[in-house]
Amino acid sequence: MQFQDFSVHAAIEKLTALARTAHDLTAASGLTAQRIGEMKTSFCGFDLLYATQRVTPEVLDALQELADEAGLIAAYTAMRQGEVLNRIEGYACENRQVLHTACRDVFADPPLAAEASAKARRELEKLRTFLDEVAGGAIANAEGKPFTTMVQVGIGGSDLGPRALYLALKAYALPGRSARFIANVDPDDVAEVLSGLDLSRTLFNVVSKSGSTLETLTNERLIRARLAQKGLDPARHVLAVTGEGGPMDDPSKYLRSFYMEDYIGGRYSATSMVGLVTLGFVLGFEASMEILRGAHEVDQGAMEPDIRVNLPLLLALLGIWNHNFLAHATVAVLPYSQALSRFPAHLQQCDMESNGKSVTRQGKAVGWQTGPVVWGEPGTNGQHAFYQLIHQGTEVVPAEFIGFRQSQYGLDLNVEGTGSQQKLIANMLAQSLALALGRQIDNPARRFSGNRPNSVLIADRLTPYAMGALLAIYEHRIAFQGFCWNINSFDQEGVQLGKILATRLLDLIAGRTAPEEVNPLEESMLKQARIG
Amino acid sequence: MQFQDFSVHAAIEKLTALARTAHDLTAASGLTAQRIGEMKTSFCGFDLLYATQRVTPEVLDALQELADEAGLIAAYTAMRQGEVLNRIEGYACENRQVLHTACRDVFADPPLAAEASAKARRELEKLRTFLDEVAGGAIANAEGKPFTTMVQVGIGGSDLGPRALYLALKAYALPGRSARFIANVDPDDVAEVLSGLDLSRTLFNVVSKSGSTLETLTNERLIRARLAQKGLDPARHVLAVTGEGGPMDDPSKYLRSFYMEDYIGGRYSATSMVGLVTLGFVLGFEASMEILRGAHEVDQGAMEPDIRVNLPLLLALLGIWNHNFLAHATVAVLPYSQALSRFPAHLQQCDMESNGKSVTRQGKAVGWQTGPVVWGEPGTNGQHAFYQLIHQGTEVVPAEFIGFRQSQYGLDLNVEGTGSQQKLIANMLAQSLALALGRQIDNPARRFSGNRPNSVLIADRLTPYAMGALLAIYEHRIAFQGFCWNINSFDQEGVQLGKILATRLLDLIAGRTAPEEVNPLEESMLKQARIG
Repeated sequence: MQFQDFSVHAAIEKLTALARTAHDLTAASGLTAQRIGEMKTSFCGFDLLYATQRVTPEVLDALQELADEAGLIAAYTAMRQGEVLNRIEGYACENRQVLHTACRDVFADPPLAAEASAKARRELEKLRTFLDEVAGGAIANAEGKPFTTMVQVGIGGSDLGPRALYLALKAYALPGRSARFIANVDPDDVAEVLSGLDLSRTLFNVVSKSGSTLETLTNERLIRARLAQKGLDPARHVLAVTGEGGPMDDPSKYLRSFYMEDYIGGRYSATSMVGLVTLGFVLGFEASMEILRGAHEVDQGAMEPDIRVNLPLLLALLGIWNHNFLAHATVAVLPYSQALSRFPAHLQQCDMESNGKSVTRQGKAVGWQTGPVVWGEPGTNGQHAFYQLIHQGTEVVPAEFIGFRQSQYGLDLNVEGTGSQQKLIANMLAQSLALALGRQIDNPARRFSGNRPNSVLIADRLTPYAMGALLAIYEHRIAFQGFCWNINSFDQEGVQLGKILATRLLDLIAGRTAPEEVNPLEESMLKQARIG
Repeated sequence: MQFQDFSVHAAIEKLTALARTAHDLTAASGLTAQRIGEMKTSFCGFDLLYATQRVTPEVLDALQELADEAGLIAAYTAMRQGEVLNRIEGYACENRQVLHTACRDVFADPPLAAEASAKARRELEKLRTFLDEVAGGAIANAEGKPFTTMVQVGIGGSDLGPRALYLALKAYALPGRSARFIANVDPDDVAEVLSGLDLSRTLFNVVSKSGSTLETLTNERLIRARLAQKGLDPARHVLAVTGEGGPMDDPSKYLRSFYMEDYIGGRYSATSMVGLVTLGFVLGFEASMEILRGAHEVDQGAMEPDIRVNLPLLLALLGIWNHNFLAHATVAVLPYSQALSRFPAHLQQCDMESNGKSVTRQGKAVGWQTGPVVWGEPGTNGQHAFYQLIHQGTEVVPAEFIGFRQSQYGLDLNVEGTGSQQKLIANMLAQSLALALGRQIDNPARRFSGNRPNSVLIADRLTPYAMGALLAIYEHRIAFQGFCWNINSFDQEGVQLGKILATRLLDLIAGRTAPEEVNPLEESMLKQARIG
């Protein structure tokens, strides 16, 4: 697969010209009933309404041309087939395949990357057996009682995605089952979680691909010490999800080990064992397979070249329009679903760690903006908070709304002629219209300029299937954008420098630094912060 | 108090010129041990290290000049004394005083706004009595058993600040006491919280100043129905925090009512009864007073005109330098403390709802940028997530680190010569240095441009006092910036349009709209979203 610079495509010039007179949603006929009906894409159970974006058919045609010129579908297909896309040409790099989609390619026959999918199937079978043993009582605590809680211990991709999915789907938990998460090296994180648990009924699922993540290993040590202190055998309570043959792949220390492969990046690992062990424990095996099924159907749909049909591709290009051509620095993801409260944090990682890059795949400095700042909180809460700036601030924030027609628990009450779920969704749609249309009025403080781009993604209900689909929609949006910007979305070199300096500071604190090796800046930083 | 446009001050031209050759932290001697020692301010138990901002003594002098020309201390003093600062001259507006500081001005004699502080004292006495009655058993459930959980039901300012403070301080909870929060109109929010509670031992604290907040009243109805269904008397389980004499000030329906005044904006209300009833229930009265004491000492310190001494004022001006002169659109608040996990969400509201404005105090369109997008998550978690973009992305994100030298729970373990708390803080300081210094290296993908502005705020321990101080530091940073930009930071007109349109959509859904009143856009939006 040959990648070219973002700036060389013929569509760029067209789009730059079109952006100078970008569509005005507040003009007469800027937003019509017909436009709302026409600018709609239905895909794997989701409807995307994007009439409230500042695009015209001409802009969409130019974005299609960009997608075609940049070979986005070919790149995506190559990724799924196992081409080594995690690389920078001519430089030391991770040099890996990118095969998170293979974890979901366990339904079709044959899969696009046969070996990776075979490994995924093998881990799924191990998981099914493990869950059967937990359910049947073959795996139980020393007193023979069943385990009720699983604590996932991991950080970054081993935390945010699994946590977001757990919160999204806990409404469907098996009776008596729940999960908690420990990520931070902050000792108060582990202390707070442990303080509320019956350890004798708790499994700890320690997740680290390398088996050497500082935070995770430190927390594991704290947990093992606490288990021993309570007279519990850690080998009976602690699982591992790690690389096969790595330092944590040790049956003498772990009740079970599940494997993750180095071709699955942490931030794309929620549908591997990194997410599925805990999700399977709480939701059961079948629900976990439904997550995979939803993701896989999106994976398949994302092969389609037409941006008006391929929803992740369309989202990617609308984002490029807003970021590179309309020059908006951020994007807000606003789920109207309390269950999705941590989904924006997961996307923040997935997007910003993937596309927060300044170097092309050929090792040159980029001459265009890459990934935006991604942030967000659930509505309606946000309406009473930061929406003020989104409506009337000087920074324009493109907004992506996500909602569902039905609730999960089915608890609802008709107040003033409508239920809570109806109020929730009416608020979401009202925000979309309000941002687009604005309001002209004499009082300047009550005026809304409008023309603030946004879109609405809506499905029937947040089920395991829908969650899997939603996850994959955003994963592919991110990958398509990275391909288009000609960056490697799959490495994370930017996390290294902080690690090196933290190690140096810890050496200083622990008194391990030879006097001639002491860096005066580091020493001053510790002294002025009064640390050590 | 006369406010002038941001653009008229003589310092603006100076700062614009200085920004053209802004200090280069990566240059030889750009960051030195001496600079780290000199660019430090100690204030109410916090140290601010700001050598890693792109400022020089000349820039600081010009920022001081800006603070003086804009009359920031005079404006702040007028605010505390009760001048009507929540207004737009010549237009219909809230036209109110801004007196959240009066809630804390209960120690000094005489307070700056005597009447407001007298009312605050009266509510504090009511709270003390209530908490004594709960502790002594005079207030208990129908079986005479003590209440163990308080669920706060509120949204926006009645949720985010109290929730952030509760999570920050729950390490100090009285034995057996805890809190939960319900905000969203999403029926799954209330369902999820109620599903885990023993309702017979639960108090519900319903918070709405107007007594007419849609989300809160809907959730209260759901809760009362559930209590009745369980055979529990709602009047025994439900409290109100509301405006005196308003629709919720009704002893027949509520166990107790505490009052909030209209001169305390929702987002500034955490230190009023809006926050203190729940915090007092969980932490006790004395700890609540410590929160107020910390906030009050910051309130007093913020009267100081010297920006090198007045920490909130300095933070405000550093923010203006980064946003208006270096043109960075966002600011990340990154606490190295899991207990502060929701503090960024509170600040996001407090800042963006306050300063996301486009109209001056005189009703003219602003010709400069006002509030930035504020976002953030705790470290070290973020290091494994979005920090990639902060280090190597094309968007430059000013970062504000917050940390503590000691943990709250005291659970810690020495691994490889250092404890978890030391690792946590070493990581924070390392990030500050890494962002500033960058790294030059041959491999372009492993290169860090550096020169990314940030600062570190550090205190000994996250106690109730420190939390109150931290809260007030940020409140005043926001207020100082709003005064400087000549905007009204205390209204929220931007939330109105969405409410109006949501009501119209709900009328449509409920079939209440006369045919000739139907707006085709609204109708199309519902139809295409398949709602109704």
